[in-house]
Amino acid sequence: MKYCFGIDIGGTTVKMGLFGESGEIFEKWEIPTNVENKGAAILTDISASVLDKIKERQLDKSDILGIGAGVPAPVTQEGVINKSANLGWENKEAKKELEHLTGLKVKLENDANVAALGEMWKGGGAGEKNIVMITLGTGVGGGLVVDGRILSGTHGSGGEIGHVCVNAKETEVCGCGNFGCLEQYASATGIVRLAKRRLAKEDKATILKKDTVTAKDVFDALKTGDIIAQEVGEEFGRYLGYTLANLAAVIDPAVFVIGGGVSKAGDVLIPLIQKPYLERAFFSTKDVKFTLATLGNDAGICGAAKMILSD
Amino acid sequence: MKYCFGIDIGGTTVKMGLFGESGEIFEKWEIPTNVENKGAAILTDISASVLDKIKERQLDKSDILGIGAGVPAPVTQEGVINKSANLGWENKEAKKELEHLTGLKVKLENDANVAALGEMWKGGGAGEKNIVMITLGTGVGGGLVVDGRILSGTHGSGGEIGHVCVNAKETEVCGCGNFGCLEQYASATGIVRLAKRRLAKEDKATILKKDTVTAKDVFDALKTGDIIAQEVGEEFGRYLGYTLANLAAVIDPAVFVIGGGVSKAGDVLIPLIQKPYLERAFFSTKDVKFTLATLGNDAGICGAAKMILSD
Repeated sequence: MKYCFGIDIGGTTVKMGLFGESGEIFEKWEIPTNVENKGAAILTDISASVLDKIKERQLDKSDILGIGAGVPAPVTQEGVINKSANLGWENKEAKKELEHLTGLKVKLENDANVAALGEMWKGGGAGEKNIVMITLGTGVGGGLVVDGRILSGTHGSGGEIGHVCVNAKETEVCGCGNFGCLEQYASATGIVRLAKRRLAKEDKATILKKDTVTAKDVFDALKTGDIIAQEVGEEFGRYLGYTLANLAAVIDPAVFVIGGGVSKAGDVLIPLIQKPYLERAFFSTKDVKFTLATLGNDAGICGAAKMILSD
Repeated sequence: MKYCFGIDIGGTTVKMGLFGESGEIFEKWEIPTNVENKGAAILTDISASVLDKIKERQLDKSDILGIGAGVPAPVTQEGVINKSANLGWENKEAKKELEHLTGLKVKLENDANVAALGEMWKGGGAGEKNIVMITLGTGVGGGLVVDGRILSGTHGSGGEIGHVCVNAKETEVCGCGNFGCLEQYASATGIVRLAKRRLAKEDKATILKKDTVTAKDVFDALKTGDIIAQEVGEEFGRYLGYTLANLAAVIDPAVFVIGGGVSKAGDVLIPLIQKPYLERAFFSTKDVKFTLATLGNDAGICGAAKMILSD
């Protein structure tokens, strides 16, 4: 019996999992992320936890196929992180360091891409080999899996669907410095922006007329039949659906998996995105499926383990 | 010494090449494409030519690693062509048939994707593993190579960059049935459309004021300093450059290779596309290179051979 570790390195906690070679999850645990001193202790802490687990379970290092890990930053093909704001790392040779610390094979990837691989393996994209995962949270992240492999890209920044320009006339600047990025309309904060803009010029009655509005408020109101919330939801869906139609013409995926905090709105999301998608989709991509992510916080550790088990 | 065949099946001729395992091209030749009777004889003709060549060169079938071929249609993962208008094929199990006819291993792929692989191997993308090739001809085709492998997509229609919607307000319909596809502005016919629209509302002097205008006329005039031609070229470049900026955010390629008849305009094309590209590109993709395709008609046979030699 062989094993591997799947690790999801976040800015607050490091999620860890011990997997069997057939994909069984034997154990999940977390350790805190120590971001002090430019995150100097993060890899040492991870290494200690991995080696402790091997000892605790009376395994031999030769039983371990390797360590896969997702990192909140682009990762170069050599496993270097040029900059991770969340971890404090700069020019960090993380793959080399973690291999040196543990004596095990290490694979690193951007966390959004790793989550996409996890959802392909055991989640909303199970059974497929070509998936696009869209993570609708504070921002809009994305991950592509092509023929069962993560599309890392040349700079390790593949899948940055949140920074596709969808509105050339936008006057507010995006966090990336450009104007009119998808993230400005389809993230949780983007949906709130859409709602505020609409409320500012609307007279219709709506339960959204209150001091602070969240993306959850919008979808909750939409479910009760609130017309303004429905219009905001449709506007969000048009931005995202049209973007995915253009992407599908080039990528030709089997399924779009929608994850992140906004996806907790549930099944109501899918038709809002799929209807505009179908208006624009290239004929051969009209049957692409839309599903919600199912793994939640486990997508990262699962995808990270899969990077090792796919080898 | 091992060999392989690289084949490019077109609507008029089938281009064929005999390659050595190290990538040498030993010989190139063509046979006519017999499209009569729904293209029933095409594979038999190809098989006969392959077997003749093996005999002529006194090779043994065991010396042949396989046959790679590009086809002007989407190709399923099983090597089936559901429909090729150019060849007359419908529900053609081409891979199976050609393997049966020749007794050799066969790999089939869409011809635009195969050409992209060829340009990555020996052409404008040489040295890189992540390339996007854009073919500007009668239409706009495209091919993606990700980490050295063709992105075929779920329906075999990956890389259809010509059918990304770039102008939601377009009133003329595209050949695909949608409105505002990139192909309507960046193909040879699209460039003519842009020129005609501009000429219809322009009073400025231009050598383009004549009965018929071609894409070549536009770029020839642009090179002589014609202002209207320059404006048409810039409009073409904006449509294409903005589209590539959005694509780069998601695909993160190392290089864009521009091919097809329009690319014969030469180096004047690159700044027209790259300037608007840089206006919109996500920060980590600003250094993506732009090159012209260099293999011309050989891109297909080279990419087809590479599919076999990469295995």
